[in-house]
Amino acid sequence: MSMIFRQLFEADSSTYTYLIADPNTGEAILLDPVMETVERDLQVLRDMGLTLTATLETHVHADHLTGARRLQNRTQCKIAYPAMVQASCIDIGIREGEPFRVGSIELHPLFTPGHTDHHHSYLIDTPVQKMIFTGDALLIEACGRTDFQSGDAATLYNSIHNKIFSLPDETLIYPAHDYESRFVTTVAQEKARNPRLGGGKSKEEFVTIMENLDLPYPRKIDFAVPGNEQCGSCPDNVPEGLKGSCAYRDQG
Amino acid sequence: MSMIFRQLFEADSSTYTYLIADPNTGEAILLDPVMETVERDLQVLRDMGLTLTATLETHVHADHLTGARRLQNRTQCKIAYPAMVQASCIDIGIREGEPFRVGSIELHPLFTPGHTDHHHSYLIDTPVQKMIFTGDALLIEACGRTDFQSGDAATLYNSIHNKIFSLPDETLIYPAHDYESRFVTTVAQEKARNPRLGGGKSKEEFVTIMENLDLPYPRKIDFAVPGNEQCGSCPDNVPEGLKGSCAYRDQG
Repeated sequence: MSMIFRQLFEADSSTYTYLIADPNTGEAILLDPVMETVERDLQVLRDMGLTLTATLETHVHADHLTGARRLQNRTQCKIAYPAMVQASCIDIGIREGEPFRVGSIELHPLFTPGHTDHHHSYLIDTPVQKMIFTGDALLIEACGRTDFQSGDAATLYNSIHNKIFSLPDETLIYPAHDYESRFVTTVAQEKARNPRLGGGKSKEEFVTIMENLDLPYPRKIDFAVPGNEQCGSCPDNVPEGLKGSCAYRDQG
Repeated sequence: MSMIFRQLFEADSSTYTYLIADPNTGEAILLDPVMETVERDLQVLRDMGLTLTATLETHVHADHLTGARRLQNRTQCKIAYPAMVQASCIDIGIREGEPFRVGSIELHPLFTPGHTDHHHSYLIDTPVQKMIFTGDALLIEACGRTDFQSGDAATLYNSIHNKIFSLPDETLIYPAHDYESRFVTTVAQEKARNPRLGGGKSKEEFVTIMENLDLPYPRKIDFAVPGNEQCGSCPDNVPEGLKGSCAYRDQG
């Protein structure tokens, strides 16, 4: 097994998009692509001589619009989403227990609800250590919020403990976001340092922390969620100041 | 290529010892083993059914005694050190340009002086991303001190920029120490966040920072350096309160 791996960044929503490709077949996927960076992503693929076969999502994002539909328009790639998200634009429904393949690379979907009710993480067994893409379930020294989109703190606690913290200490964790220029963490590191979960915090402690975060209303959620439920189309209700989030509205 | 990888920790000196092994041959090395944790390391090797073929050092440490000599006494492994450290106890002299092999795994030594005048880092090309073991040259949001053992801040700056920051952004950096339960970082992360080097700091800025650290005198240096120059023997001058650092004095 060998694998091309790039960690790409979209600054407005601080989102990491992951490029995963099989160097032997030239097949590539983009995990959690963002609409604003579709052209950048296509350029990276061209520069590396790769063919985009699919986009893949960890969940229906509330903080940015996915680039999936626009990338499909440009490359005829497939669009993969957790199967619980039902929409006619989805080509491939993801379920735990059914590996998602990119050439000879296998991504193992793990059902990790709590941030949303359909959230999946993706585990790859590399020849050295495991790497897991945790989306918004587990972030570096943080985690996804649980106060909208059928989020539930106790459910998220179970997902993190049963599906992520049960992996070997050296497992690399690649999240969907970071807001402080951190790029990677490990299971051992989050078990020790995560302020909401680390040091063996109980489910009750975690739920109390999550209930008291007092977070602002997400600025893009009203159009991002319906837009992402349509694989990254631009609804009519995008406010004037956020039109840049729908840079491809005409073609969407 | 496949590789067994464990990141082991010694708490008194906050040292990471790395176990690297070829699962196909069962050959293993320990990078920067510590005297106090020799029995723990041997147990890990036994549990995994591995044979220790060598110990390997990034440099002559000043903050702990290496477990090299004691591990050799117990397993007949070879002792590898940077070749610039000349001592009769050293079996293998490491030089940049000459790969060090563990079964089919190649560690590429990179000469990274500055913390000490003989310091080497070790680069492995995994099938996914590169990983580099930076010893005390580059730590997570820090770096090794440069005020003893022929250290030199300008030299360290050049080593970090020419040998480490020139690697791809996704390269995993595994340091010899961390004091805050962090386990891994990346080239992109240190370029952005390292308070002594990040954000494109100049060599002059770095040298000024290093000159003004005002660090305490290392508590073990007076016996650790001569002891490590003999591959981890216990000199006579170990103070009473630090005898635990020479737990194997009788056998050393």
